[in-house]
Amino acid sequence: MNNTEDMELIRLSSHVNSGKLVALEVGKDISLPIRRVFFVSGELGEHRGHHAHKVLTQILVCVNGLCTVICDDGANRKKFILDSSEKVLEIPPGIWAEQIYSRENTVLLVMCDYPFDEADYIRDYDEFIQYRKEQLT
Amino acid sequence: MNNTEDMELIRLSSHVNSGKLVALEVGKDISLPIRRVFFVSGELGEHRGHHAHKVLTQILVCVNGLCTVICDDGANRKKFILDSSEKVLEIPPGIWAEQIYSRENTVLLVMCDYPFDEADYIRDYDEFIQYRKEQLT
Repeated sequence: MNNTEDMELIRLSSHVNSGKLVALEVGKDISLPIRRVFFVSGELGEHRGHHAHKVLTQILVCVNGLCTVICDDGANRKKFILDSSEKVLEIPPGIWAEQIYSRENTVLLVMCDYPFDEADYIRDYDEFIQYRKEQLT
Repeated sequence: MNNTEDMELIRLSSHVNSGKLVALEVGKDISLPIRRVFFVSGELGEHRGHHAHKVLTQILVCVNGLCTVICDDGANRKKFILDSSEKVLEIPPGIWAEQIYSRENTVLLVMCDYPFDEADYIRDYDEFIQYRKEQLT
């Protein structure tokens, strides 16, 4: 089972001339294949997420603004501040995650290793705690 | 050889509650594998790009702001306005492309089907015209 303790931000390098370019290479910066990509533009202060995945891994990059990500493994919570597109957060399966859109025009880019499947979601926190217990036994 | 005449924007659907989520699925919305992703934050009015690729295809999404993309096949130019993340532009190989960051905080997301390879770039316009001629003969 994955734990928040083992979760760390991955740092990408940027190329700055007048603008800024940040690149991420599959097989180098991240090891998973990208099967689905989604981008979320949140309202200021919006709180989204509130779910875990059973199998799917998410790679998060805040490409504009600032996104606060709370990760929870049922025993411990860990907070990550995504305030630059050089910071990448990989959320493995079995981790409950929430995102707060903490600045105007915050855009979160999420890359997933599987297509959308509602059956892979755990959207109820008590059910999540139960799921973690079952996985550990 | 690819022509700008055949280039059209792909439309993605969005899920709007308080914020907005737009998703793109590999094998459904786009057919190419994603091997490299980069995100560019441009200065207002910045003009970037000015190159073509020999083999690589780029998938462009403007995830914040407004990006004007000019595509050129050596004979015809075509302009695309990316003013929403529902609009996706696929730039095939052999097309010269330029991007203008036309609004504050414009962020362009680019997904590529190959890793970075400087040898795949044509960065000189005269050389590009010569390359198109050679490919057509």
